[in-house]
Amino acid sequence: MKRKDIYLDTVPLQEAVNIFFGELKKTGFFLNKRVEVINVSESLGRVTAEPVFAKISSPHYNAAAVDGVAVLSEKTYGASEKTPVVLFRDEFIVVDTGDPLPPNTDSVIMMEDVNFISDDKIELISPALPWQNVRLIGEDIVATELIVPENHRIRPQDIGAILASGHVNIKVYKKPVFAVIPTGTELVNPGDELKPGDIIEYNSKVFEGLLKEWGAEAVIFEKITDDCQKIKYTVEKALKVADGVIINAGSSAGREDFTASIIRELGRLLVHGVAIKPGKPVILGIIEDKPVLGIPGYPVSAFLTMELFAKPLIFRMQGLPENGKEKIKARCAKRIVSNIGSEEFVRVKIGKIGSEFVASPLNRGAGTITSLVRADGIIRIPANKEGIEAGEYVEVELLRKKEDIENTIVIIGSHDVAIDILANEVKKKYPDINLSSANVGSMGGIMALKRKEAHAAGMHLLDPDTGEYNIPYIKRYLREEKIILVNLAFREQGLIVKKGNPKNIKGIEDLKRKDVTFVNRQKGAGTRLLLDLKLRELNISPEEVRGYEREEFTHLAVAAQVVGGTADCGLGILSAARALNLDFIPISPERFDLVILYEYFDLDAVQKLLKVMKSEEFKEKLKALGGYDTSLTGEIIGGD
Amino acid sequence: MKRKDIYLDTVPLQEAVNIFFGELKKTGFFLNKRVEVINVSESLGRVTAEPVFAKISSPHYNAAAVDGVAVLSEKTYGASEKTPVVLFRDEFIVVDTGDPLPPNTDSVIMMEDVNFISDDKIELISPALPWQNVRLIGEDIVATELIVPENHRIRPQDIGAILASGHVNIKVYKKPVFAVIPTGTELVNPGDELKPGDIIEYNSKVFEGLLKEWGAEAVIFEKITDDCQKIKYTVEKALKVADGVIINAGSSAGREDFTASIIRELGRLLVHGVAIKPGKPVILGIIEDKPVLGIPGYPVSAFLTMELFAKPLIFRMQGLPENGKEKIKARCAKRIVSNIGSEEFVRVKIGKIGSEFVASPLNRGAGTITSLVRADGIIRIPANKEGIEAGEYVEVELLRKKEDIENTIVIIGSHDVAIDILANEVKKKYPDINLSSANVGSMGGIMALKRKEAHAAGMHLLDPDTGEYNIPYIKRYLREEKIILVNLAFREQGLIVKKGNPKNIKGIEDLKRKDVTFVNRQKGAGTRLLLDLKLRELNISPEEVRGYEREEFTHLAVAAQVVGGTADCGLGILSAARALNLDFIPISPERFDLVILYEYFDLDAVQKLLKVMKSEEFKEKLKALGGYDTSLTGEIIGGD
Repeated sequence: MKRKDIYLDTVPLQEAVNIFFGELKKTGFFLNKRVEVINVSESLGRVTAEPVFAKISSPHYNAAAVDGVAVLSEKTYGASEKTPVVLFRDEFIVVDTGDPLPPNTDSVIMMEDVNFISDDKIELISPALPWQNVRLIGEDIVATELIVPENHRIRPQDIGAILASGHVNIKVYKKPVFAVIPTGTELVNPGDELKPGDIIEYNSKVFEGLLKEWGAEAVIFEKITDDCQKIKYTVEKALKVADGVIINAGSSAGREDFTASIIRELGRLLVHGVAIKPGKPVILGIIEDKPVLGIPGYPVSAFLTMELFAKPLIFRMQGLPENGKEKIKARCAKRIVSNIGSEEFVRVKIGKIGSEFVASPLNRGAGTITSLVRADGIIRIPANKEGIEAGEYVEVELLRKKEDIENTIVIIGSHDVAIDILANEVKKKYPDINLSSANVGSMGGIMALKRKEAHAAGMHLLDPDTGEYNIPYIKRYLREEKIILVNLAFREQGLIVKKGNPKNIKGIEDLKRKDVTFVNRQKGAGTRLLLDLKLRELNISPEEVRGYEREEFTHLAVAAQVVGGTADCGLGILSAARALNLDFIPISPERFDLVILYEYFDLDAVQKLLKVMKSEEFKEKLKALGGYDTSLTGEIIGGD
Repeated sequence: MKRKDIYLDTVPLQEAVNIFFGELKKTGFFLNKRVEVINVSESLGRVTAEPVFAKISSPHYNAAAVDGVAVLSEKTYGASEKTPVVLFRDEFIVVDTGDPLPPNTDSVIMMEDVNFISDDKIELISPALPWQNVRLIGEDIVATELIVPENHRIRPQDIGAILASGHVNIKVYKKPVFAVIPTGTELVNPGDELKPGDIIEYNSKVFEGLLKEWGAEAVIFEKITDDCQKIKYTVEKALKVADGVIINAGSSAGREDFTASIIRELGRLLVHGVAIKPGKPVILGIIEDKPVLGIPGYPVSAFLTMELFAKPLIFRMQGLPENGKEKIKARCAKRIVSNIGSEEFVRVKIGKIGSEFVASPLNRGAGTITSLVRADGIIRIPANKEGIEAGEYVEVELLRKKEDIENTIVIIGSHDVAIDILANEVKKKYPDINLSSANVGSMGGIMALKRKEAHAAGMHLLDPDTGEYNIPYIKRYLREEKIILVNLAFREQGLIVKKGNPKNIKGIEDLKRKDVTFVNRQKGAGTRLLLDLKLRELNISPEEVRGYEREEFTHLAVAAQVVGGTADCGLGILSAARALNLDFIPISPERFDLVILYEYFDLDAVQKLLKVMKSEEFKEKLKALGGYDTSLTGEIIGGD
């Protein structure tokens, strides 16, 4: 059975790059300069394919540098307040800035220093120096001078200088053209109606964006089904119009084999499988002396392998160095386990907490495109390293500007839809400030504050003994920290059940029922603590609840499992139930607060955050979601 | 006379910005959101005008995460090597990655772990856990979740996530449209034949590039002459098609008055003159609630005032924070004098010498577009500061990436066309390495090495006592530095004279003639020292040479003065004479060396530079220029 095939060879990343680029070099691929002559004024962002030497000088004549009168300096020698020099018509000429210096003059006197007796007669009380206020020929550019070298990416100011130096056209590298072929019977176009098993084909649009950013042109082919002949035919067609071909395969073994065997049939298969994670199933080959890349289907694998293999290729085709990503040192917030033998790329969120950057790993699944949207950077774990310890300092390649990261408020802790809304309102009112949130549960938030990994934490921790929210926990676990407690909102917790409540669930006691499956939140989540409290009150043991051990990290994820039918109910907030059109059985209202570390309270960004929390607009948006009481929203309700 | 008008009011920069943005705000300009709905796949680089919440979950069904068989986990409990579990047709279903999880199954066993007895019968030796190898609904995205906030610039991965979350269209800010009107009777289009007084109109092309880079669209109008009615008519036309208008006036007083008076007539003139240098004549106003900017004509003033006034406007119209330039601390190599009362913007070259960044000021003329091409950064000198001392540490706003600056070899010293050629060859062979040269003369180069402002210096200093080149000077002035001396080439120095030598100049002795004017090089230039030596040999005193005090900084600049007719001759190299089609009277051959500081000799970039110097290609290019002997080019000829 084909299905049991494994990758023929899995080669280390650097080796894969060396093989691919080495073989391409042998074919003369990089020597074959693809150039074109275009109009200078349309050359923004293009790369020079030859040096630009000035054809003419600029100024190309000796020019008046000010408004004034042009004179022969000799004639003004000896001028002083006591012995003014008088010049007559023909001895001076009125000039404007930029006018050519008239014959038989060698300097310009500023208008302010000229005393006009009449239109034909002027008086000067100080002498002019030769060449004063004259822009000499070639002051800016001397003909034949180098304006920009070869392999230079053209900026707006370069366009000015190149035009000023007498060029109208310029020789640049052609934009490398890459064909993208999406393959997979399960693919549907964005906007098509979805059946289970359908996958929206968006990778090609991501590739198009990447290719454009790298200076290439993308030719996106219509998606094709898993039909070896059709794919082969399309590859042949693509090779006619492009400098390189990208086949985006799904990740099932059968389909990859199509790509590999087509490359083997039409050209040379160089690499099938690279020791990286994600991205292992990448395929590299050459057909008709052109690079052909088989890029895996999972969106994160796809993005990463495009960066690792297509980007350096496209830069090199344009004579450009691959511009490395900015790197920073960051403290790793959590332990990251990695397998020996694969170079692993972990997406992280980064916050600047005090003077340090702190990196928190995001979802590592190759299928989570949102992890690339949320990521601020990527940590590379070498193949020979077993992982990274919490607290270890690591190098992070940035996906966003350092400045943006520095203007980000980091909130780690419990999840609430209100924090998403808050993030958007902050960005809307203050475009320079970002709010980044990570959902690790209320207790996780407390620990993050203790370890200085966040500016603030969201929490809703009910103390069973006192019935008080949050403060008892802060007193216990954050004894050494000064904090300020601000209310986000009061909200309703309850059981999220299917529309129409088909299992007729009425409350926590129904979780004992054999025909009811539950989906829980992760350990340390306030919602889970609330469940435990309620179970204890009813003398129900966790073992009696089917699905107690199934953990999801957000209210919405819990609701999604109810929609998907993998659970009959879960404990969560009203807004999550409403969002997915589910029913809701109220269990308990609760207070949700933001705990802000006192040392960051005066930060401009934090003050702006509080302003937004107090705004009527924000409160209105929360009320519209349902289940929120905003009577204390934005109010300081505690601190030490 | 109008010509004597001075600026009505010159306001400080921040005040000008406050007035302009404040008045625009009052008209509701920034509240009036210009939005449009476009296809997500065409949204790269655009900015969201509303938050994007997920319409659907992704995956939108429970999916197999691997190729394998789907089973109900309960049925596998108890499986072990000793007690394998056997499942029959209907109890297992073969699935591919991405397939929907079949009904009545809750987990997927990887193909490798399944023992197929027949197509109808499998054997398992370990139990399956519920939901193992299943991508649960919403694993990546849960419907209603925030994907990207408002005011977010869309990247390739965002396109993927937005499409995955069920959107086909997206609401983004319209690209701000700015009209650019070039005015000036002296303007000609690139490629037109040039008469003295003509100025090539390239500012509008620079503006177009800037506007595009900032996310706006440019509507470039055909240049118009200095005719108040025509300009007024064009402004009115531009206001109909654009969100804002940029009038690019020449810098003569008359023309500015047109812009100011047109704005006053059609709308409100807010600012006329800002206390900045360059860029003082900027004009800011509002017509029909739209911003109208009068941008000065000198290219550097134009570029700078576009950055200061148009850029923040365009960013704000798109809901984006103005992305500040990266800043570094650098040591200032030279004293910079600045006038009190104006905020001054000085373009600088930056080199990373050892562990320090060193900034060297470039030509400060507002007319030198090449200073913007060569600049690595800009120093702002506040209005209340008289300048910057040599050695002072200053903040520099970068115009290039820090990484590029770090990969730059800095050569300060004497000028030779060969260094331009070398710079291009280095960039061509090693796209990641840049060569930056500044021309301060041979002695200036020695001083730069002493102060650690360069990696290497070009020099050709003849010792009159020994007849030896460079080494005696190095011994005298660089006693404490270890250096390595590498030959660049031998070259011919001579008198550069007009084509056909109309003044019949035969040698240095002709410089005494009353009808011969000379143009000299700056103090410290090896060529000037050579002249002094030759004059002394002939017993000619500098006072006898007409033009001895006229200084130019490069061979090409000297040649340009001969072309321009401001001098009859100058001392310089053959290649400069040839470049500008001038005649050449040989005076003396000389050796031109690169002096490299020993501590930087092992730098990868320096080693690559030496490789290029030794290459046949480089030597061939030098020979083609004429006047170069490359027999020792690239050879180490001294050091300590």
